[in-house]
Amino acid sequence: MQLGIVGLGRMGMNMGLRLIAGGIEVVGYDASAQARQAAQSERVTCAATMAEFVQRLSKPRAVWLMVPAGVTERVLDELLEALDADDVVIDGGNGFYRDDQVHAAKLATRGLHHLDAGTSGGVWGRERGYCLMVGGERSIFERLEQIFAVLAPGVDSAPRTDASAEIRPAELGYLYCGDHGAGHFVKMVHNGIEYGMMASLAEGLAILEAADIGNRTQDASAEVAPLHDPSAYQYDIPVAEVAELWRRGSVVASWLLDLAADALHRDASLEAFKGRVSDSGEGRWTVNAAIDEGVPAPTIAASLFSRFASQGSSAFADRVLSALRKEFGGHDELPGG
Amino acid sequence: MQLGIVGLGRMGMNMGLRLIAGGIEVVGYDASAQARQAAQSERVTCAATMAEFVQRLSKPRAVWLMVPAGVTERVLDELLEALDADDVVIDGGNGFYRDDQVHAAKLATRGLHHLDAGTSGGVWGRERGYCLMVGGERSIFERLEQIFAVLAPGVDSAPRTDASAEIRPAELGYLYCGDHGAGHFVKMVHNGIEYGMMASLAEGLAILEAADIGNRTQDASAEVAPLHDPSAYQYDIPVAEVAELWRRGSVVASWLLDLAADALHRDASLEAFKGRVSDSGEGRWTVNAAIDEGVPAPTIAASLFSRFASQGSSAFADRVLSALRKEFGGHDELPGG
Amino acid sequence: MQLGIVGLGRMGMNMGLRLIAGGIEVVGYDASAQARQAAQSERVTCAATMAEFVQRLSKPRAVWLMVPAGVTERVLDELLEALDADDVVIDGGNGFYRDDQVHAAKLATRGLHHLDAGTSGGVWGRERGYCLMVGGERSIFERLEQIFAVLAPGVDSAPRTDASAEIRPAELGYLYCGDHGAGHFVKMVHNGIEYGMMASLAEGLAILEAADIGNRTQDASAEVAPLHDPSAYQYDIPVAEVAELWRRGSVVASWLLDLAADALHRDASLEAFKGRVSDSGEGRWTVNAAIDEGVPAPTIAASLFSRFASQGSSAFADRVLSALRKEFGGHDELPGG
Amino acid sequence: MQLGIVGLGRMGMNMGLRLIAGGIEVVGYDASAQARQAAQSERVTCAATMAEFVQRLSKPRAVWLMVPAGVTERVLDELLEALDADDVVIDGGNGFYRDDQVHAAKLATRGLHHLDAGTSGGVWGRERGYCLMVGGERSIFERLEQIFAVLAPGVDSAPRTDASAEIRPAELGYLYCGDHGAGHFVKMVHNGIEYGMMASLAEGLAILEAADIGNRTQDASAEVAPLHDPSAYQYDIPVAEVAELWRRGSVVASWLLDLAADALHRDASLEAFKGRVSDSGEGRWTVNAAIDEGVPAPTIAASLFSRFASQGSSAFADRVLSALRKEFGGHDELPGG
Repeated sequence: MQLGIVGLGRMGMNMGLRLIAGGIEVVGYDASAQARQAAQSERVTCAATMAEFVQRLSKPRAVWLMVPAGVTERVLDELLEALDADDVVIDGGNGFYRDDQVHAAKLATRGLHHLDAGTSGGVWGRERGYCLMVGGERSIFERLEQIFAVLAPGVDSAPRTDASAEIRPAELGYLYCGDHGAGHFVKMVHNGIEYGMMASLAEGLAILEAADIGNRTQDASAEVAPLHDPSAYQYDIPVAEVAELWRRGSVVASWLLDLAADALHRDASLEAFKGRVSDSGEGRWTVNAAIDEGVPAPTIAASLFSRFASQGSSAFADRVLSALRKEFGGHDELPGG
Repeated sequence: MQLGIVGLGRMGMNMGLRLIAGGIEVVGYDASAQARQAAQSERVTCAATMAEFVQRLSKPRAVWLMVPAGVTERVLDELLEALDADDVVIDGGNGFYRDDQVHAAKLATRGLHHLDAGTSGGVWGRERGYCLMVGGERSIFERLEQIFAVLAPGVDSAPRTDASAEIRPAELGYLYCGDHGAGHFVKMVHNGIEYGMMASLAEGLAILEAADIGNRTQDASAEVAPLHDPSAYQYDIPVAEVAELWRRGSVVASWLLDLAADALHRDASLEAFKGRVSDSGEGRWTVNAAIDEGVPAPTIAASLFSRFASQGSSAFADRVLSALRKEFGGHDELPGG
Repeated sequence: MQLGIVGLGRMGMNMGLRLIAGGIEVVGYDASAQARQAAQSERVTCAATMAEFVQRLSKPRAVWLMVPAGVTERVLDELLEALDADDVVIDGGNGFYRDDQVHAAKLATRGLHHLDAGTSGGVWGRERGYCLMVGGERSIFERLEQIFAVLAPGVDSAPRTDASAEIRPAELGYLYCGDHGAGHFVKMVHNGIEYGMMASLAEGLAILEAADIGNRTQDASAEVAPLHDPSAYQYDIPVAEVAELWRRGSVVASWLLDLAADALHRDASLEAFKGRVSDSGEGRWTVNAAIDEGVPAPTIAASLFSRFASQGSSAFADRVLSALRKEFGGHDELPGG
Repeated sequence: MQLGIVGLGRMGMNMGLRLIAGGIEVVGYDASAQARQAAQSERVTCAATMAEFVQRLSKPRAVWLMVPAGVTERVLDELLEALDADDVVIDGGNGFYRDDQVHAAKLATRGLHHLDAGTSGGVWGRERGYCLMVGGERSIFERLEQIFAVLAPGVDSAPRTDASAEIRPAELGYLYCGDHGAGHFVKMVHNGIEYGMMASLAEGLAILEAADIGNRTQDASAEVAPLHDPSAYQYDIPVAEVAELWRRGSVVASWLLDLAADALHRDASLEAFKGRVSDSGEGRWTVNAAIDEGVPAPTIAASLFSRFASQGSSAFADRVLSALRKEFGGHDELPGG
């Protein structure tokens, strides 16, 4: 089995290496010469041009895109010209699921097939395997099922829910989710949940971190409510140790907690970070989908908006609040911050 | 009728002046000589010491406290010593309603009465009148009803809901709300609503202010979702004019909107403010009460937490999120912010 | 001046009557014979067919659409056929602002003009006037400015923010907001703010309503946390009176509060309502816009999701939670509800 | 080593069995004869009366309470009479951390010690072990460390974060968190995080479950926004399979997801549940603590309020919203729900 990969960044490269280790022949391509060179040095065969890339693949070709959402469109157009009928393009990036419907229709005009493959696993995927959520024509999914199986973590990566049942693809770590876009739709919601879980953890750890607030001095001013029970907040909680603790036997045990414990173990105050939290689209789309569907998603939405605020984009609204307080109460802003 | 006022800051002073204009005899006191002097220069009679203050009032005395919540306790203790049986202390500050129950019990040990009087109106109250929410013994409320009536805005300050009914105190702008603490309880919830309304306005105006975001340049990186429809966000909305507009005939017409229009009229970008928004307790207590009651208050809670975030207190949680993103995705924080 | 109105429901009819009272000639049309008859009985001249409607208007015609968002498209297509170059269609409904861009482009193919006019005022607009937010070509806005001025409440409907300045349209109650869609964009955000303000009020009043929860009996079971301080929740707050009270001198004074006081005055328990709260699009679009812009709107979003939940659409998520509690804790659901 | 257990419900019984299996001598007591009998039949030695229970334990005694928060106070008072100086009471229930400070002070008056031991693990703890968060005097914690070690899951229950370091108690699954109350404080925050994670999962799964909403018919009325892109919501996502899938290699892999997959595997529509979600205190206390500390917790708060709403307690607020919509827009409530 053979797979072409366009986009040899962190993710694309690691997937290629896992595939090679699993016996799949891989041909890589990246517009950046530097990325190609890095890939070659890891023994990923690379083509120097898109034309050469296409030529090296046997028909019907399978090309996996692992490029930023912002450039997908351009690469797809290139491939549309270069590929032949019955070839398959798999979009493995974090694309918007509605675009898949458009992309699939466009490819179909030349007899090409499109799969969307939501891919989770991050930098750990090479070793742990990738969780794959696939949308498109079922027959095309089945044609490439071996590739998904190699990329996926496999059944042993988690205890079986029902050991007596026959093993299903979901238990191997990949799933056919439905028609065009279904894979990215499920990946989108996955990331929405990820936002909410991350924020829940982060908020909780922050509450622990501030549990000594009763020991800090406070001003008595009409502007600040005095802490009612300072004696109730005089704990110096070992936050990193708590994260480690909860990994065993607690209800919040999770891979995210494992990672939090790891990060806090190395730097309990996380001073290396500024706390400017990016968001790369799926959280937004998840909340949009909830709204379109009329399904409440207050928790996930709260986590999304906290990220926006961390990026400084609450500035105007905050100034409006300060202006209003000045207007009705003559309140000046407190110094600091 | 006569009233003693302890605390001659912005609020206490203005209330004194409204009372004097309404024919009430006022005696003031403040621990700060500077505050006493300022009051004297506005023709508010002031006592130089607490003892003199008490002496100047006729029995049964009525003493209105207008001091920061952090010092109420100390002043109450002083008054407990200085006053006589049947005297009344009215706590007009933003006290916590449960403290009223404690304070009333303490005063009762010496035969003194306690009223809690939640007071809204801010710096405009002297001219517009104060909205008064009163708790305590009903007979004591009735003893001082004339004072409340002078402080309140009066029936003409809003069109009557039911012009055919007899005028009730609520229509004059003051209300007996119930037993000890009921006044501050109602004021607390009032302020909770205020938080939510303010945040609703602020968020909406911020959305208008950013309606030209499609005109700003954007990076194409895996870290940032490309704006899907830049053409949909190319409006240069005149935000200050919109605030003015909505004051007439719209559903969001409100005193807060009047104030927003005023602030934006003077400075459309509100550059004079840093956006560090204080909170003085009632928002917190309102959400606490909702939690105790098991009543959902997601909107008010969201507005409270946005204030906390504006004060910089989401720092640790935000760093946890950045650390997690680094852990699972190798994502570096974006520059800026 | 003359205006054609398509859609003689509650809103369209009332606007027609206000225009007639203001000296504008009005010709109405509605696909429903019943609606036409009702309009005629109120002395609004009506055409029996779309063709007759168009014929009765003088060129360049001005046609105001006041139809549900779901049928706008169809009516626009009809008008596109029936109207002539330089005629104007004003969409006064709660349309999605991006559709205005599409509609304007479509009308432009035949030389027709499009204005979007966000309209607030509800059933009270006939008497109080309508707050109008207009988008499109500025010259076309100016051509019809007299119509907007008659519909709007006028400068006297609110105290002037700056009495020394020249009177601007915003002070009359209408505003040119920008290019196609800008009017509906501003109306959309207006409604988003309305959602947040309404929810703030509703949550606050509900907290007051439950202030006697300490008097209600409680079970001691591992499933329910005992109320820590029952004595702190024994108030029987007169909620309707509080709503009335706050109308005078308080910070939350607003038209929405006026309406709440009115509704509670007539029925303090609001038993006539089931509490199934509809949403008609703008709240959703406002949160979508906040997300596209990367501007936090947690308060408005919370109010939107509460509406969804009131419609019963949290059912599956709630069952997931109950299932999880059963899984990890063996907890059975409590009876009731 | 020996431990007395008061409260032989689900949790207390299972803990006893794990202790016995781990070589600890256990004496049980429960006020209910039925509970005692059940325990005896599982070979847990039980005392028939509190006096006998105390007598059977060797001094200095260690008594573990596993009773509902509502009865803790009463049992503590009994033990205060029955125990002797230097005996220890460990409160393993979901108590409020501030009560621990009070309880410890009360016990100290008779020379008794108090530990608070937040305990996670639910019905699975007997087999998987319990995650233990302990507060109180460190020397007393150390006296009973063997008991905690037997109850805890042990180091093998999760891969080590740093295999080169010496094994610390947190890695075994128990932790000394600080002074009186610190254990329950950490457990409280643990449960707060649990609320947020559960809600994130539940909301996400609900969004998947409704991904076919574009296939359902919709009314065109001014009351309901038409779904803009029905074609974007025509997926029939196999939700149970997705939950199973995400367990392998995805970022949201977690014990809660394992449980969700299990529950959905057995009943994909979860029809056995009504969706009335209880809350047992810690979620409330967590948000209270966030508020006291001034730390934003919008995500966790949203999840808490969703539970309240699931219990039907948004009824009054929802009726206020419907009443307001009727007032300003004449909108009738939609049928259904």
